[in-house]
Amino acid sequence: MIVAMQDTATEEQIQDVIEHLVRMGFSVHRTTGERQTVLAAVGARIDFDTRNLEVLSGVDKVHRISAPYKLSGRSFRPEGTVIQFANGVKIGGPEVVVMAGPCSVESREQVFAVAEQISKAGARVLRGGAFKPRSSPYSFQGLGLEALKLLREAGNRFGLLVISEVMEISQIELMLPYVDIFQVGARNMQNFNLLRELGKVKTPVLLKRGIAATLEELLLSAEYIMAGGNYNVILCERGIRTFETYTRNTLDISAIPIIHKLSHLPMTSDPSHGTGIRDKVPPMARASVAAGADALLIEVHPDPDKALSDGAQSLFPDQFSKLMDELRMIAPAVGRTLK
Amino acid sequence: MIVAMQDTATEEQIQDVIEHLVRMGFSVHRTTGERQTVLAAVGARIDFDTRNLEVLSGVDKVHRISAPYKLSGRSFRPEGTVIQFANGVKIGGPEVVVMAGPCSVESREQVFAVAEQISKAGARVLRGGAFKPRSSPYSFQGLGLEALKLLREAGNRFGLLVISEVMEISQIELMLPYVDIFQVGARNMQNFNLLRELGKVKTPVLLKRGIAATLEELLLSAEYIMAGGNYNVILCERGIRTFETYTRNTLDISAIPIIHKLSHLPMTSDPSHGTGIRDKVPPMARASVAAGADALLIEVHPDPDKALSDGAQSLFPDQFSKLMDELRMIAPAVGRTLK
Amino acid sequence: MIVAMQDTATEEQIQDVIEHLVRMGFSVHRTTGERQTVLAAVGARIDFDTRNLEVLSGVDKVHRISAPYKLSGRSFRPEGTVIQFANGVKIGGPEVVVMAGPCSVESREQVFAVAEQISKAGARVLRGGAFKPRSSPYSFQGLGLEALKLLREAGNRFGLLVISEVMEISQIELMLPYVDIFQVGARNMQNFNLLRELGKVKTPVLLKRGIAATLEELLLSAEYIMAGGNYNVILCERGIRTFETYTRNTLDISAIPIIHKLSHLPMTSDPSHGTGIRDKVPPMARASVAAGADALLIEVHPDPDKALSDGAQSLFPDQFSKLMDELRMIAPAVGRTLK
Amino acid sequence: MIVAMQDTATEEQIQDVIEHLVRMGFSVHRTTGERQTVLAAVGARIDFDTRNLEVLSGVDKVHRISAPYKLSGRSFRPEGTVIQFANGVKIGGPEVVVMAGPCSVESREQVFAVAEQISKAGARVLRGGAFKPRSSPYSFQGLGLEALKLLREAGNRFGLLVISEVMEISQIELMLPYVDIFQVGARNMQNFNLLRELGKVKTPVLLKRGIAATLEELLLSAEYIMAGGNYNVILCERGIRTFETYTRNTLDISAIPIIHKLSHLPMTSDPSHGTGIRDKVPPMARASVAAGADALLIEVHPDPDKALSDGAQSLFPDQFSKLMDELRMIAPAVGRTLK
Repeated sequence: MIVAMQDTATEEQIQDVIEHLVRMGFSVHRTTGERQTVLAAVGARIDFDTRNLEVLSGVDKVHRISAPYKLSGRSFRPEGTVIQFANGVKIGGPEVVVMAGPCSVESREQVFAVAEQISKAGARVLRGGAFKPRSSPYSFQGLGLEALKLLREAGNRFGLLVISEVMEISQIELMLPYVDIFQVGARNMQNFNLLRELGKVKTPVLLKRGIAATLEELLLSAEYIMAGGNYNVILCERGIRTFETYTRNTLDISAIPIIHKLSHLPMTSDPSHGTGIRDKVPPMARASVAAGADALLIEVHPDPDKALSDGAQSLFPDQFSKLMDELRMIAPAVGRTLK
Repeated sequence: MIVAMQDTATEEQIQDVIEHLVRMGFSVHRTTGERQTVLAAVGARIDFDTRNLEVLSGVDKVHRISAPYKLSGRSFRPEGTVIQFANGVKIGGPEVVVMAGPCSVESREQVFAVAEQISKAGARVLRGGAFKPRSSPYSFQGLGLEALKLLREAGNRFGLLVISEVMEISQIELMLPYVDIFQVGARNMQNFNLLRELGKVKTPVLLKRGIAATLEELLLSAEYIMAGGNYNVILCERGIRTFETYTRNTLDISAIPIIHKLSHLPMTSDPSHGTGIRDKVPPMARASVAAGADALLIEVHPDPDKALSDGAQSLFPDQFSKLMDELRMIAPAVGRTLK
Repeated sequence: MIVAMQDTATEEQIQDVIEHLVRMGFSVHRTTGERQTVLAAVGARIDFDTRNLEVLSGVDKVHRISAPYKLSGRSFRPEGTVIQFANGVKIGGPEVVVMAGPCSVESREQVFAVAEQISKAGARVLRGGAFKPRSSPYSFQGLGLEALKLLREAGNRFGLLVISEVMEISQIELMLPYVDIFQVGARNMQNFNLLRELGKVKTPVLLKRGIAATLEELLLSAEYIMAGGNYNVILCERGIRTFETYTRNTLDISAIPIIHKLSHLPMTSDPSHGTGIRDKVPPMARASVAAGADALLIEVHPDPDKALSDGAQSLFPDQFSKLMDELRMIAPAVGRTLK
Repeated sequence: MIVAMQDTATEEQIQDVIEHLVRMGFSVHRTTGERQTVLAAVGARIDFDTRNLEVLSGVDKVHRISAPYKLSGRSFRPEGTVIQFANGVKIGGPEVVVMAGPCSVESREQVFAVAEQISKAGARVLRGGAFKPRSSPYSFQGLGLEALKLLREAGNRFGLLVISEVMEISQIELMLPYVDIFQVGARNMQNFNLLRELGKVKTPVLLKRGIAATLEELLLSAEYIMAGGNYNVILCERGIRTFETYTRNTLDISAIPIIHKLSHLPMTSDPSHGTGIRDKVPPMARASVAAGADALLIEVHPDPDKALSDGAQSLFPDQFSKLMDELRMIAPAVGRTLK
């Protein structure tokens, strides 16, 4: 940590800050310049709240030197994390993995139809929502356990892994037998109790960035899971909130190369939630792969106009196949493959 | 709902949209202009996802006419909601109510000291955190039940109501005997399962705006609680995330008069979390009252420099007293009083 | 325009709004529902300020039906605009056009070196700043006319078109003999006097989106230029300001497909200013082409570490060549070519 | 400047960065910790682009220690700047100064009517737009020189100072005889050529914050004017762009106390443009004074419903008088007066 004192700071104020730092367990190096004194504080707690120094008299600014995360940082595993599944699929390896399926599981027919379609088109993972608390209290709320069973069955039938969203600690146990990947939604990115519990299982966790979360905060949330012992964390960009209202959110494609620099964890993209509009999904899916995404999460519905939720952002199966063909052309430009 | 068709929409496309609307339960009025056809659709579900129409061919834009909330809207109770407590305190009435206390409950000494100080200065409600999941996994996590008991005891001793944050459904039962108001934090504003359960109790709920939530989304979340039967909802602005990084968040003071126009619910402000820096709390507290806030939530600590969390944004007891004096001068300018 | 009245609006208020609309030249269609009256107003001025209705008593919400722009809207020229240059290069056609060069023109050696390098790699247009007013009054401010001459000379020598930024009306005349495209920077996107003057020349104008501008505002600014008679407008995404601070701005890749839907004008991307960091430029350039960009604007410097401005975001010539190779692999996935 | 090296940085990389810094004129102090080397660089140019170091190999992060502005910083004039006018009015002193008037000057009748009304209510400065380039090319564009003459005449008649917006360098000369304060609008906050010219006159300049500008950028723009010798700069918050769309912009009230801490310049607020809606102006005006604003800029029109521009955000004269009465009650709470 670097503490820059004000030009006008008195020697007494400087000593006071030094004592404060020492009491907190830091060792302090002092640089006195012509105009300004600068204190470099090393050691001590990774999570120190720098504002506690900023409010001391005579302090101008405080800069954190080390990132506030460790396990999720690139230097923890410079070669990068590859998450390997029983069926041989790897996330973080040379193959770009596509996860697809409906927003909500609605019926056996729907799940099996879509599983067959996406599997043929080259997807590796079947996605589908079982629990759907919605922003309006008057909307469809999901099939629950029944949905999980259908996903598993369809996944097994068509050789697909299964991912579904976990929303509460109590659902972890319930979901464990059915899913290959737990998805943590944007709204739960800072539900720290949930993250801690997910740190205790071995099943990989796909953690979505909150719509107002910085990338540093995303890595801090990943740290929560990893601190519990579960290192199988996959990160996902799904759009941030900006002033532009044409799309629901602004998919921050630059998050992909940034996370690849800051962290060793696989970084994926969800262009369906990131745009919220069907015809924007293919261009943003292509852009994500071109920017280096390790995997994609795409909503596909056998009949989007009749979907019970998010139909407007779901691709028709034909659109999905066409998109997969385009992605197959782009992948080699970034040294990747696609099934 | 208003569906504006594109200039180039064919009669077939228009008929297709009309059928779609009718199938969904709307009745449709058509206006054909020189350049453009416009369909007004009335009736049907309050939570209809307008994007489902926007993706139909020939549609230009869809505008929602009615607000997607009912119970929390101004017209549901035009005279405004006043929440009355057993000891006679009212939130939403002529008196501006001040809630104060430490970020986290740390010890009996701390809670009693601060309760005495804020009570003397004119506060009506004692705040304090019992459960503190933090953004870093390496930080202090709260005293739990013990904290709730201390708050209740200190509240009773100094004639203060008690407010504390609820973070999970399982804590509702636990907290019920100890608190007069449940606080829902910004991160849980869209934890719909939690909101639904809070709709089943009678204890008032103070609902904080998420840092990326629009005011419409805040009212939709209030709707969730009210739909369950608990109409005692208090709203709270606590800062939104913007590009400005000098403060943690940007306290959106304009949310106060806007909510007062859109809703009948009391609207309050939390300048401590809204700024994150001690010396910005008094000016923003004054601004909140001047803009018409019904209540304030302010962090006060008997010794902020030693606080286990958020010390940098906590006022010293003396600062708090001085602030209360200033607020007493401002309140009459908006036709209010302060104890 | 659609005016939705409040549930509680009186007949008198409704009549008052109707009179208001008629006085403004609108013809009004009234729909009276069970709960609410809705007025559809057609005709009148394209630039009507809807807030003038929103403040009338009894009005709930006002929705604009037609886009506030005409000439820049898709329906004005559904087949899309292709801008053709004397040397046969076309922007908006099947070829993705790459414009490259240094942030500032610094010397003859620099310009000729970079022009040769980018020309070999496949760029079609040489970019370079002549006038550089900087955000700090203490920085390098550009070579002016001398820079324009160097650009033109180097452009002619290596078969490249020339683009440079115009910052004031007085520079238009000065620049006309030297540039093939005028660039309007993000800060001048709403310098309406400048836009109006650029409407009077025939030289194409590349108009950059302001960092806080919505896409609708970008199209309104294009309208200004087109209203003067210059239809050769090229739009450019260069990053918007969001809460994420890792990059200078967030390059909004989704702006590319959105503009292609809303407008007939070519849409381009500037990943150099959009990210501000060299190693993020190639992934974002690839993403832009994958999302359908008609052209790219990329900063290249023969020796970025010694650049007088923006060296940190300039590519080394070798990086640029490698990037061009990658873009050549991606272009066919979107039905495009690259020289 | 502080350069934090990566954990994995080699001694060679560290030496390379040191050489780089020395070549740039910095003197370097090195701290080698257990895990990390940190370099403190002092001296050299105030406007150094830190990204030039961030791209060097082995560098983790670069922190600027000194603010990039000097003349506008608090320490340049710790006692604060008070701007004094010939008629005795002072901005930055104990009196809160109110500037009011119409968005655009429309006619002699209008200007004289409003000048009389605001003067009676206690305003000190008459505001009014002479040049109005609008965001749509189809709108009213202002009366120009004629407007300036009317403002001056009405100002003299009712003992008011005059402020009007300057939009181009060529208008400075033209306006000089008529205005007491030049206003620079949000869109021109980074029009550095204009700022530089305004640095050469003695007339005070009111500089509005851009809708996407950080407070640091606002102070850098003030620096531009001051660097030319004109120290009479007044800053103004007028709303920033956020994701909330209910108001045009979000008036960032916290900018007031922050600027008062960072700078010695008077800080004012424009609640009319900051909200864009008439009934939000009084609460935000009150909030601004309660937060410590030195002056306010408020749009008042004798007949807002007939205003040629921005009628929806203009107060009726009666509303303005009532607001002034409220402000008179609030001012003493912050140790201020109001005429």
